Amino acid sequence: MSLTGKHILSSDLFDRDELERLFELAEVLVPVARGEQVTRALEGAVMASLFFEPSTRTRLSCESAFLRLGGAVTSTTGSEVSSLAKGESLADTSQVISGYCDLAVMRHPEVSSIHEFAAVTNIPVVNAGNGAGEHPTQALLDMFTLHREFGRLGKSMDGRRIALIGDLRHGRAPHSLMKLLALYEDLTIVCIAPESLGMPQELLELAVSHGHRIEESHRPSIALKEADAVYATRLQTERFADKPLPYSDEFRVDRALVSQVCRADAVIMHPLPRDSRPGANDLGADLNGDPRLAVFRQSDAGIPTRMALFASVLGVADEVRKSLRPAGWYRPEYTRPDDAPFYKS
Amino acid sequence: MSLTGKHILSSDLFDRDELERLFELAEVLVPVARGEQVTRALEGAVMASLFFEPSTRTRLSCESAFLRLGGAVTSTTGSEVSSLAKGESLADTSQVISGYCDLAVMRHPEVSSIHEFAAVTNIPVVNAGNGAGEHPTQALLDMFTLHREFGRLGKSMDGRRIALIGDLRHGRAPHSLMKLLALYEDLTIVCIAPESLGMPQELLELAVSHGHRIEESHRPSIALKEADAVYATRLQTERFADKPLPYSDEFRVDRALVSQVCRADAVIMHPLPRDSRPGANDLGADLNGDPRLAVFRQSDAGIPTRMALFASVLGVADEVRKSLRPAGWYRPEYTRPDDAPFYKS
Amino acid sequence: MSLTGKHILSSDLFDRDELERLFELAEVLVPVARGEQVTRALEGAVMASLFFEPSTRTRLSCESAFLRLGGAVTSTTGSEVSSLAKGESLADTSQVISGYCDLAVMRHPEVSSIHEFAAVTNIPVVNAGNGAGEHPTQALLDMFTLHREFGRLGKSMDGRRIALIGDLRHGRAPHSLMKLLALYEDLTIVCIAPESLGMPQELLELAVSHGHRIEESHRPSIALKEADAVYATRLQTERFADKPLPYSDEFRVDRALVSQVCRADAVIMHPLPRDSRPGANDLGADLNGDPRLAVFRQSDAGIPTRMALFASVLGVADEVRKSLRPAGWYRPEYTRPDDAPFYKS
Repeated sequence: MSLTGKHILSSDLFDRDELERLFELAEVLVPVARGEQVTRALEGAVMASLFFEPSTRTRLSCESAFLRLGGAVTSTTGSEVSSLAKGESLADTSQVISGYCDLAVMRHPEVSSIHEFAAVTNIPVVNAGNGAGEHPTQALLDMFTLHREFGRLGKSMDGRRIALIGDLRHGRAPHSLMKLLALYEDLTIVCIAPESLGMPQELLELAVSHGHRIEESHRPSIALKEADAVYATRLQTERFADKPLPYSDEFRVDRALVSQVCRADAVIMHPLPRDSRPGANDLGADLNGDPRLAVFRQSDAGIPTRMALFASVLGVADEVRKSLRPAGWYRPEYTRPDDAPFYKS
Repeated sequence: MSLTGKHILSSDLFDRDELERLFELAEVLVPVARGEQVTRALEGAVMASLFFEPSTRTRLSCESAFLRLGGAVTSTTGSEVSSLAKGESLADTSQVISGYCDLAVMRHPEVSSIHEFAAVTNIPVVNAGNGAGEHPTQALLDMFTLHREFGRLGKSMDGRRIALIGDLRHGRAPHSLMKLLALYEDLTIVCIAPESLGMPQELLELAVSHGHRIEESHRPSIALKEADAVYATRLQTERFADKPLPYSDEFRVDRALVSQVCRADAVIMHPLPRDSRPGANDLGADLNGDPRLAVFRQSDAGIPTRMALFASVLGVADEVRKSLRPAGWYRPEYTRPDDAPFYKS
Repeated sequence: MSLTGKHILSSDLFDRDELERLFELAEVLVPVARGEQVTRALEGAVMASLFFEPSTRTRLSCESAFLRLGGAVTSTTGSEVSSLAKGESLADTSQVISGYCDLAVMRHPEVSSIHEFAAVTNIPVVNAGNGAGEHPTQALLDMFTLHREFGRLGKSMDGRRIALIGDLRHGRAPHSLMKLLALYEDLTIVCIAPESLGMPQELLELAVSHGHRIEESHRPSIALKEADAVYATRLQTERFADKPLPYSDEFRVDRALVSQVCRADAVIMHPLPRDSRPGANDLGADLNGDPRLAVFRQSDAGIPTRMALFASVLGVADEVRKSLRPAGWYRPEYTRPDDAPFYKS
């Protein structure tokens, strides 16, 4: 399989070989992501960055990844979200945009949107989040992070115990991640959520069909034990309107909980943003500085992963490798407040 | 006449020789627009993209055209539209922006805006829509599309029967197009609109003074007959506030109407967006796949046409031609859902 | 001292040597700012342009400066300001952005924001306005303008009489400028404001501690006399909510006032935007064309000054100098409606 020319709508597109090829390329691109090396492989190419829902992290990460490859970006702005209310169909928008650029990245609040958009275009489309649907580039960077973190700990990906905790029903990031986890061997996947917010049944079945063990739990203080990785997620409050939020503070992954139940070499992840307001039941800021907290190493991983994906989709992976040269400007040494003593890239 | 250093505020700037030079250059640039070739002729140049009214199509098309020439773009975003309410005059904005870039593209809801802006700047300004005024780059791409479509049908531009249908009073696109049509020979221009939405008198007179025949009609089902090209437009509902809309479904250009009255080789165009909601009296989505529907070939034409215009205004047309080289990335074969069997670029 | 790798949060970072090095580099970059020369020194570098408050001038100026150096830009858009309300801390935003780019420019309505942001990132951060706090790049371009204007008048910076007039309490631009003025010798700084809007005491004391003379006044018609430079500022009406505005039209710096009290070779500046609505007590548009009005030469100065700053912070000042080459596109002769007969760059 080759990714060249493919739409990237769901993480179920990937097989394990493809993932490993992508991660191997992403590893080569880490110095580019850090501003230590430069490539101009996509000079002349244009990406359309179509965010019909506010986004800072994903949009800037995708745009920076394309720019770091030497390409250029044209982007929707806030006011255009409303202008689509004039009645243009997504199919028309898609066909028009297809004539403007070489690759489109789209986020949209409706699940069906990305499929309508991709169905009528000949340029590759990358899903950057379709409502409560999927977020495949997030899953790629999450998976790449697991790889690197387990790698530096001397552990293999296979055989690990991975805990997902939080709103597993509405979070598109854990949905997309489940499909990638399924590609590995012999995992124990622990899904920890309030009763009404569990992982969708079909994703559990997918994992089982690949031979993994599933454990479901509502009790973080028990279920997080022995996890090699803890993947926390934000409560998707925007999906609850006026209903009471189903979270208790049991679901806050903070220093108290982590020091009580987590392994000394656990890898703690979160797709971000996390809610840092007092009383929020999200990943605690009091974990900052704990070497187990990998969230910023994880968000950094977005650039090389997306570079690798874009380069593969546009068929320039080899050109990128060959074109790398040192960058000329100042770049501070790479460190992270959450860098572990054992962390070396 | 040379376009170098000129403001492009109205399509009455062009004469026929200039148009043909532009189209000849645009034709050379089609492979660049499609990502098959690359030029860096404008490397180091900066365009300011000033949209004080929401826009996706025109903004992204102008930005992509400048980026495809090797230039860079800095762009207003949604929030800045309101910030202008602080009381700064457009003249001040213009003078400030002049010091930041080499070319400015502006859209603004008021007709007089573009003239105020252009009056006090020494950099070239391109009008991307001034209220109900003009939209000259749209007219250029429309005209380029007519050229190409008639060309592949073995017809000359001169002597054709061109029908414009819809809100001809408020639509800036048909206004700008009328001025370009006037430059050709021996046309029959059929203006089809509800009584209150007819083409402005001075534009009709302009065409007559150039020797063209004008026919006015309120009956699409009769007036579209024998038209070589049908240029449909969207009802500018935002100009009607609470008044009842003056359209009946007679003005819907859909499969039923087209199959009933249009020529087998008619070219059906629309500046887009079209309203695809049920009951909208606009260009029907049920025409998609009909080879006569040229709307996406037309929107594609925006990139090479605007590239040709920007290159001419900045005096680099020759440099652009000389600098073309093949692009290195994957690009799917150019096809269109509305591609006719007879369509070859 | 070297600026390489430094955060630029306040203008108190600079000493006089550093300022003069920056201005010497900015002078070299004037032809790049005008589109007459090109450099690609920052090719491959990415700047994040983070404006959490509407801005046209400063944002476009910073972005254009980075683009003119050969770099690329990724930018927040209007809709993202609200998305930050999801509860992410600025510290998290900062750490995430740090992994995406080589330099961040940020504007934010709260004074403390820039410090929270800069505290946790290893990439250089440039303050583009933090509430009523500071605006150091504005101060740099103001100071560069004073240099150039006094230079062409054959005057030295030292020993001058500089009048600041307007809302000196809330204006971050005059605050940042005061700290740079303090670095020169033997100035008379005249602060002219309504009683409730005077220059903060600590900034007056700073100037005194550097040996400058301070004069405070509420009467423009007297205090502007003999000033070598007049720095007018806009009333920060957004800081007054429903309270009555404390300005009378005495504070309007217009043709009547200037012709009555100002020197024939006074340099009249303003950070812009100015309120041009009838009755606004701001810098009068009736001064346009008066050679003393330097406001557009001043705003032009933003590009070379910011280029010099970015190049210094990223450690490529020498590379930039060496890499300059002529630009290939058309550029009109540099003139300004406010160009004095004596003005030559």
